[in-house]
Amino acid sequence: AVHGAWKMEDYVQFLALLVSALLVGFVSVIFSLVWVFHYRGGLSWDGSAQEFNWHPVLIITGFVFIQGIAIIVYRLPWTWKCSKLLMKFIHAGLNTIAMILAIVSVVAAFDFHNASNVANMYSLHSWIGLAAVIFYAIQLFLGFAVFLLPFAPVPLRAALMPIHVFSGLTIFATVIATALMGITEKLIFSLQNPGYSGSPPEATFVNCLGLLLVIFGALILWMASRPHWKRPPEGNVKLLQPIGGTPEGTEVESTVTDGSNADKSELKINSKAARKQNFKLDEAGQRSTM
Amino acid sequence: AVHGAWKMEDYVQFLALLVSALLVGFVSVIFSLVWVFHYRGGLSWDGSAQEFNWHPVLIITGFVFIQGIAIIVYRLPWTWKCSKLLMKFIHAGLNTIAMILAIVSVVAAFDFHNASNVANMYSLHSWIGLAAVIFYAIQLFLGFAVFLLPFAPVPLRAALMPIHVFSGLTIFATVIATALMGITEKLIFSLQNPGYSGSPPEATFVNCLGLLLVIFGALILWMASRPHWKRPPEGNVKLLQPIGGTPEGTEVESTVTDGSNADKSELKINSKAARKQNFKLDEAGQRSTM
Repeated sequence: AVHGAWKMEDYVQFLALLVSALLVGFVSVIFSLVWVFHYRGGLSWDGSAQEFNWHPVLIITGFVFIQGIAIIVYRLPWTWKCSKLLMKFIHAGLNTIAMILAIVSVVAAFDFHNASNVANMYSLHSWIGLAAVIFYAIQLFLGFAVFLLPFAPVPLRAALMPIHVFSGLTIFATVIATALMGITEKLIFSLQNPGYSGSPPEATFVNCLGLLLVIFGALILWMASRPHWKRPPEGNVKLLQPIGGTPEGTEVESTVTDGSNADKSELKINSKAARKQNFKLDEAGQRSTM
Repeated sequence: AVHGAWKMEDYVQFLALLVSALLVGFVSVIFSLVWVFHYRGGLSWDGSAQEFNWHPVLIITGFVFIQGIAIIVYRLPWTWKCSKLLMKFIHAGLNTIAMILAIVSVVAAFDFHNASNVANMYSLHSWIGLAAVIFYAIQLFLGFAVFLLPFAPVPLRAALMPIHVFSGLTIFATVIATALMGITEKLIFSLQNPGYSGSPPEATFVNCLGLLLVIFGALILWMASRPHWKRPPEGNVKLLQPIGGTPEGTEVESTVTDGSNADKSELKINSKAARKQNFKLDEAGQRSTM
């Protein structure tokens, strides 16, 4: 009943994109492992180049793949029957895991630099990467304080939600851009005879990893930015049930206690837009068969 | 009268962001010129490193700054009294200028490589950069064919508009990511004694240019993705005029001839959302003074 507003076509399209994103993300993680184990001597934690190797593996696993999944976790239609609070915990939990992996990954890079007397924080990669980690930490803290704890008033939640969404997506895109810079640096520094410009197999392989990251990012951003794929507001679900239902078109005064309705009116409007768009496409489909 | 739905607060906020974006974009162009003239021997067209210098200057001027302005040109409130068709020509025109500058800039890079026997197309920067130019060309061609020429039927326009918007913003973000990779490469290759890791003034200066590009991108994406800053649909403007007006709440059957109404219903809903949000904030404001 919760899926009532969705058409089968929508569902298939969403599933196809989700499977593609999971596949591209998973293959990216595998590629990072192949890069590190096949070409760069594997992993260790001893200040060597093998310790540095944790850096790309953990960034791609945590800061790209897990962060990407955390972004779209509200969109999974089979979670719409779960409470919003549970989904918030999953969203926050995945982002916390991503944060921890990102921090360990940064420590690995610093450790390696310090052990080999390489300067820290001189490159654009390091500047933007550190800024991304700091903004991610702020985002996580504010998200927890405003949207998960029950203290923030509804107007504050409503005012901050668009900023939370925008900065989340911008940080995600920035992380991918930073990973591309990191790949560029690492290939230039580590490839010798032939160098990067000689296009040895490692260079081509890791360039492909870079492409995969861009495709993964685009898939996640597309899924996250389709208004009609948003989790329906609690109100709409209630409309389908006899108890607690209200006549359609009537605005219910919000009596939020756990904050799960903070972005309710926005969602309601977006699901209206989605239904209208479906209607328009139906019309178009009918015309094309005439 | 057209600005009726906008509050002064909205207007001031939009203007502040616009001025910031123009300033950051303009300073980025100046930074690229200072980089090239003060640190890299200026510009020429003779296959030398000075020919290559056109590459960052034209990319930042055209593919970043002008493309960014092209993206938000519909958002400028003082253009809402102009016809949608005129605005489409300006949008398409700015994007065409950006495309030409991007192509000249790529030619400069290839010319320099060929004259100095440097390999082409080996780096992740070149792969993603070339892909961005190709997708940008496709986007420009499809945008022209579907939204500017009067032949495409309304349902096709409506179906393609979200894709056009998403791919436009994604290409823009990808171009900035590619510029960051380009900066990384160029600083590694060209800085000697001290190298990049020694943080000479040029490295710090050009890292700041990279940061400016990220800030510019974030400002443009924020302005482009606020639904309540969208150009109001023709229908809403008509509602304020006695001739051609329709009773509020009545859906007008679209009889589009120039396609300016393709995204009408989406806009109408979004401006409803914006008004509702204003209302909610008003409420919050009143409560806080109680």
